[in-house]
Amino acid sequence: MASEGQGSEDRIRVDSGGLRTFAADVLTKLGVPPEDATMAADVLVYADLRGVETHGMSNNNLGRIYVRDIQSGKIKPTAPLTVVRETPVTALLDANLGLGLSAGVRAMNMAIEKARDSFIGMVAVKNSHHFGAAQYFSMMAVPHGMIGISSTNSNPIVLPTGGREPVYGTNPISVGAPSGGEPDFCLDVGTSAMVFQKLILTTRLGTEIPLGVAADDEGVPTSDPSVAVEARKLLPLGSTPELGSHKGYGLGMLVDVLCGILSGHGASIQMDAGENYGSVGHFFCAIRVDAFRPLDEFQGQMDDMFDRVHKTEPARGFDRVMVAGDPEHAKEQERRSRGIPLLPAVVDELKELADDVGVAWTLTG
Amino acid sequence: MASEGQGSEDRIRVDSGGLRTFAADVLTKLGVPPEDATMAADVLVYADLRGVETHGMSNNNLGRIYVRDIQSGKIKPTAPLTVVRETPVTALLDANLGLGLSAGVRAMNMAIEKARDSFIGMVAVKNSHHFGAAQYFSMMAVPHGMIGISSTNSNPIVLPTGGREPVYGTNPISVGAPSGGEPDFCLDVGTSAMVFQKLILTTRLGTEIPLGVAADDEGVPTSDPSVAVEARKLLPLGSTPELGSHKGYGLGMLVDVLCGILSGHGASIQMDAGENYGSVGHFFCAIRVDAFRPLDEFQGQMDDMFDRVHKTEPARGFDRVMVAGDPEHAKEQERRSRGIPLLPAVVDELKELADDVGVAWTLTG
Repeated sequence: MASEGQGSEDRIRVDSGGLRTFAADVLTKLGVPPEDATMAADVLVYADLRGVETHGMSNNNLGRIYVRDIQSGKIKPTAPLTVVRETPVTALLDANLGLGLSAGVRAMNMAIEKARDSFIGMVAVKNSHHFGAAQYFSMMAVPHGMIGISSTNSNPIVLPTGGREPVYGTNPISVGAPSGGEPDFCLDVGTSAMVFQKLILTTRLGTEIPLGVAADDEGVPTSDPSVAVEARKLLPLGSTPELGSHKGYGLGMLVDVLCGILSGHGASIQMDAGENYGSVGHFFCAIRVDAFRPLDEFQGQMDDMFDRVHKTEPARGFDRVMVAGDPEHAKEQERRSRGIPLLPAVVDELKELADDVGVAWTLTG
Repeated sequence: MASEGQGSEDRIRVDSGGLRTFAADVLTKLGVPPEDATMAADVLVYADLRGVETHGMSNNNLGRIYVRDIQSGKIKPTAPLTVVRETPVTALLDANLGLGLSAGVRAMNMAIEKARDSFIGMVAVKNSHHFGAAQYFSMMAVPHGMIGISSTNSNPIVLPTGGREPVYGTNPISVGAPSGGEPDFCLDVGTSAMVFQKLILTTRLGTEIPLGVAADDEGVPTSDPSVAVEARKLLPLGSTPELGSHKGYGLGMLVDVLCGILSGHGASIQMDAGENYGSVGHFFCAIRVDAFRPLDEFQGQMDDMFDRVHKTEPARGFDRVMVAGDPEHAKEQERRSRGIPLLPAVVDELKELADDVGVAWTLTG
């Protein structure tokens, strides 16, 4: 544990292993089977390690999402993950409203096993819940010499091009691919210009938000943070028709086709506001690189591509041109050794959660 | 044949079937085997039918790209498409510097056949050339009850986030998926904010270009069309770091991973400026919907999603909220019956091409 000045607030460094054990203990206490709790805790803490702070313990998603939804009965902690339909290269799974974090791990493992045996594995999941940071799952494939793909749909909060009612969620797409010496390729992008959590964070800073990430109630882009948070209408990646918003919108709907329609769960716009509101569908895929070419040749060419990009001249105000996965890799190296930086307010929330659930908090004083 | 006022210029309507025969005749005359020439012509005219005018006969890509490159020896008209590596669900093909249009059709057909037998088919192609409009190939899968994916890399012309040297091409991603009564889903998006051809077109109109689609030589976004065309530095989808340009950049590099590295062709930034400059790699995938759920249920849920989106209220200045594939479908319906609108200058170019190559032009007076 150490303190770190970051902006005006001191962060408290907490060991990632300890945080993982804590999260697993909390989930187990709430009735999640130990194996699933361990899987889920690893997904959560990985988000913190990789700097995806909106999706991990740094944001207390454990308490704010998973514990809350288990306690309210929305997430069924012991729901089985059942196979609906299966071929050597595909499967449709039903998470039966269980924990999305562990359902995601099991589904991606299944895709990886299918790819090991048959070169490709593709698994869709219905009736699941929020699965955390998408890159956890895509990156699971990478140490196996595979390209991994993961995606999930979510409640509608993003406007279509030319519309004023949200029709799809921030619907992320993540792809991981193995490099050699360079950090592995890791794409993890929402299909909106900005995710809502980051919008709220920006809003808290009291500054204007960039014009092109959110709209007012009539669908007109706004730079007023209070108007944006009130309206809950994000803009697609591409922001406006002139800058290609139909591309971000189309990619968001693609996620709905794969996660919502192929799984049968339903697209974002088909999610009812009833008792299962918040349930989602996922899509996972693993592709064995050596089905196409030897893995070491693939890795060598990945390294060379990254190396060439790194050597290009940065624009004014930038130190270095990065590739997808570079920032996450740097954060992970640093946080594995120095611990995960938590806001004091979050530490307080986690202590309170520990008390509520009846689990020991021993990671800070 | 009919005339149509469009802006200040009259367009000449030409029958799509006649245009297809003409394109095939030209390619055959240049030594392309008749079956390949027919495939290639269908890809070209499909782009015109669907309104992708930058990629079809409307832009005289036949003369400006394919005939030119066959005549210069860059495209080898009789190069075989050979299988380098194959499994029941995957293949790596070598186009041996042949025509990308027909190589794309053959590769996608192979992906579809593999999916028919084994539920998924994934085919990467190296040493190919410009394959035209990506959506031709993804949409080939749709009548088979499959989701189709197609992609290609291309010469670097797009800046990375934080950079001032282009590192990837406009690298498009296309996905087609079957609906029931509604037009089929058709995503076809470059991973830059705007494609270069459209930038040139905008420039010809003499107006400013939107800030966020192109940069000056130092990588700073510009609204000056002449500066933008001179610099040849497009911005990624997402335009600026504040609006999520790292997402478009990451998606563009994903295309390079699938088309350039998985195929072994090389990523955009690895394309040398030597004699094979302009050669590219492709990626195709077909997924049988009924591996996951009955096709009619999938189609019904697609229709319902589209219907719900269509029923949402449009923003000011828009008549109707559309989904990916709607504009293309409308254009295709109209152009199949009324013909393809060509600029008089393009008709002149095609007549000249006919003369040069020794093929009859009988489609206009």
